[in-house]
Amino acid sequence: MSQSFLSVQPYKGTRDFYPEEMRFRHWLFESLRQTVSAYGYEAYDGPMLEPFELYAAKSGQELVNEQLYSFEDRGGRKVAMRPEMTPTLARMVAARSSQLSKPIRWYSLPNLWRYERPQRGRLREHWQLNVDLLGLSSEAAEIEIVQIAIDILRNLGASSFDFEVQLSHRELNNDLFSRVLKLQPEQTAAVARAIDKRAKIPAEKFEELLHEAACSAEQISTLKHFLDAPLLEIGEVYGESEGYLAMCRFFDGVNALGLGPVCRFNASIMRGLDYYTGTVFEVYDKHPDNRRALFGGGRYDNLVGMFGQTQVPGVGFGMGDVTLKDFLEVHGLMPELQSHVDVLIGLFDADMLITSQALARQLRAEGLRVEAVLQPQKLGKQFQYADKKGIPLVIMIGPDEATTGQATLKNLRTGEQQTLAQADLLPTIQAQLKI
Amino acid sequence: MSQSFLSVQPYKGTRDFYPEEMRFRHWLFESLRQTVSAYGYEAYDGPMLEPFELYAAKSGQELVNEQLYSFEDRGGRKVAMRPEMTPTLARMVAARSSQLSKPIRWYSLPNLWRYERPQRGRLREHWQLNVDLLGLSSEAAEIEIVQIAIDILRNLGASSFDFEVQLSHRELNNDLFSRVLKLQPEQTAAVARAIDKRAKIPAEKFEELLHEAACSAEQISTLKHFLDAPLLEIGEVYGESEGYLAMCRFFDGVNALGLGPVCRFNASIMRGLDYYTGTVFEVYDKHPDNRRALFGGGRYDNLVGMFGQTQVPGVGFGMGDVTLKDFLEVHGLMPELQSHVDVLIGLFDADMLITSQALARQLRAEGLRVEAVLQPQKLGKQFQYADKKGIPLVIMIGPDEATTGQATLKNLRTGEQQTLAQADLLPTIQAQLKI
Repeated sequence: MSQSFLSVQPYKGTRDFYPEEMRFRHWLFESLRQTVSAYGYEAYDGPMLEPFELYAAKSGQELVNEQLYSFEDRGGRKVAMRPEMTPTLARMVAARSSQLSKPIRWYSLPNLWRYERPQRGRLREHWQLNVDLLGLSSEAAEIEIVQIAIDILRNLGASSFDFEVQLSHRELNNDLFSRVLKLQPEQTAAVARAIDKRAKIPAEKFEELLHEAACSAEQISTLKHFLDAPLLEIGEVYGESEGYLAMCRFFDGVNALGLGPVCRFNASIMRGLDYYTGTVFEVYDKHPDNRRALFGGGRYDNLVGMFGQTQVPGVGFGMGDVTLKDFLEVHGLMPELQSHVDVLIGLFDADMLITSQALARQLRAEGLRVEAVLQPQKLGKQFQYADKKGIPLVIMIGPDEATTGQATLKNLRTGEQQTLAQADLLPTIQAQLKI
Repeated sequence: MSQSFLSVQPYKGTRDFYPEEMRFRHWLFESLRQTVSAYGYEAYDGPMLEPFELYAAKSGQELVNEQLYSFEDRGGRKVAMRPEMTPTLARMVAARSSQLSKPIRWYSLPNLWRYERPQRGRLREHWQLNVDLLGLSSEAAEIEIVQIAIDILRNLGASSFDFEVQLSHRELNNDLFSRVLKLQPEQTAAVARAIDKRAKIPAEKFEELLHEAACSAEQISTLKHFLDAPLLEIGEVYGESEGYLAMCRFFDGVNALGLGPVCRFNASIMRGLDYYTGTVFEVYDKHPDNRRALFGGGRYDNLVGMFGQTQVPGVGFGMGDVTLKDFLEVHGLMPELQSHVDVLIGLFDADMLITSQALARQLRAEGLRVEAVLQPQKLGKQFQYADKKGIPLVIMIGPDEATTGQATLKNLRTGEQQTLAQADLLPTIQAQLKI
């Protein structure tokens, strides 16, 4: 018998959002929306399914070959569940590139899918705030985007000591790889992957990866020196590099805005995605129990062009809800959230149902949130229920009160109870809710 | 060359939501959330992917065999993109059936997938408000659910003349099929399908379907009489039917609440899904250009039990965003929505960037929505941009003003312009925004 029952578990690596988890999601998303709206960003969204080719082009091998949820639809089209939002954004911008007035300031809050081994901070389905500024080539765009990233964490309650924005520039890496290290094309990808992994692996393992990429001892030494150098020192060798100059302009800007203390140059920042062309950044949690990249982004100036329209430069980031929740938990920033109902209309007995319902309708029409008891039960239980759920007021209409057009109102916060004309309920309730 | 460019079109039957469409979606969802929250309903959500078996069990042949997006994941699990929310809801309730206090009042706003031929009111991806009340067997539950459906449309601006809730009861159909018509089991499904289609096909086609189901002339006549009969007349033959009695109790309730004029008994209401067990209803648009079912729902008392826990009775409905938008359009109820930015901080020239950015930061910290110009352009163009976007205030800081700590504030609504100390900007802006 038990064989034939369906499982109550959600699909591996996904979450059910019961009301308590959903209250948190709403609270989080509202905070994110408010921050990005304060910069004039507008919401957009695309479909959950996209053509497979959209990711095959630019999203990188690992994602497409190992993590993508792709399949053929009933019409034989190869489709994929979106693993990231930027390709959809680029497609939408390309579709209207001539009509859209620049710069474009957009955000979205999509759910994304990756076939991953579920672990801390990684699930198969997660939500991700995407914030993008398109149409600007200057570092002013990076300065705004990084400000937003910082404000998001601050508005969630984090202090400047809790996180750090670490930045580098792809052109600097290109100069390092080709001009300084003179790597062969086939070495470059392997070295880039090794750098991307560096923060998560032991130093010996990192050297091993570089040896495997056929790097000489001298190349390894030069590389390690570069990766640990502050920006000032980088300038000695890379003073002419467009990447170095862009980083200098960026840091001049954030320093002048007082954001220097939360921003740091780090030449190790690579970012996994292939489409970045300039600045790349990751925001790190500084808590000893959660030292990891929370989210990141960068500049992608060639992405919109893959649709054959004019190029539109862009810079943006994606911030996942799972890592963000870990961050809030470890820093003690999780909010206490309760459901919000103003009044419980109790049910004296079955005969009073419609009378109580009619009153509930009236109060809702005045903008109150009113839950109604629909099934007769002991009065004490009804008050207990309201108390447990944090509903401050309970109204009860018995047969006597119904005859005289009255009702009993009990305030569970003060314990005060009064019987009054139904017509006087609204102002009394409004006054009591303000307490 | 053009061969190699990716398409900018979204996947067939899906939509891109540019900011203007997204503003509408936000507005719509906010209205839906407010209405259901006024009844004390709380939001929940589940994953986009569910095990295939969840739908195979109860969702009906057509949906599973022809419309479901299902595939094998990389681990060989057969999964489906959710085509409806009720099975997920039942799974989540079953998983915690003993902990959850009853009744359960939940809503969700999921996107759902069906492989359909795209047409008016039908797309492959749509969003659907789901509202469900679980744990109550009495008609008080139906009365609340139907009230919510009505309030949703009214709060969106519809009048009582714009729509009608048509209801029937599965037990009445069961009595008709088995006790009165004495149909064979194999006939029942075919006759039910014919009734479900009746409103959309010519009368002859309907009779043809009944003939195909091996109904006699007498059976057809009895059936047609039943389908067109008002509730009172139904009582003459079905007076003992639990379905009839439940309908009577329901209509007594809604009549007493003043909702009689928008509710009507209609024995033809079947609903496509297999899991309904009692009341079923559909909300019809009464506009001559859009006479169609907008959405519907019903009672499903056996759904939670398929997970092997205790049964939990439920009643609810699902309301799609595409049909709802058609409804609002045909009734002239679409809102005019603009993006909402309080202030544009202009850019006098490139040297003023950081000065302007610093002021923007200050104003945002005070809760204002501030968009900043990041690239030098003619001042006139900046004012035009603000005007076009509906931003009421523009601030400009030139080199002279920067030296004296001042700024120029222009109100585009009144044409008024003044130069004032930056320290005085905030109260002035707040005063002007209240105009």
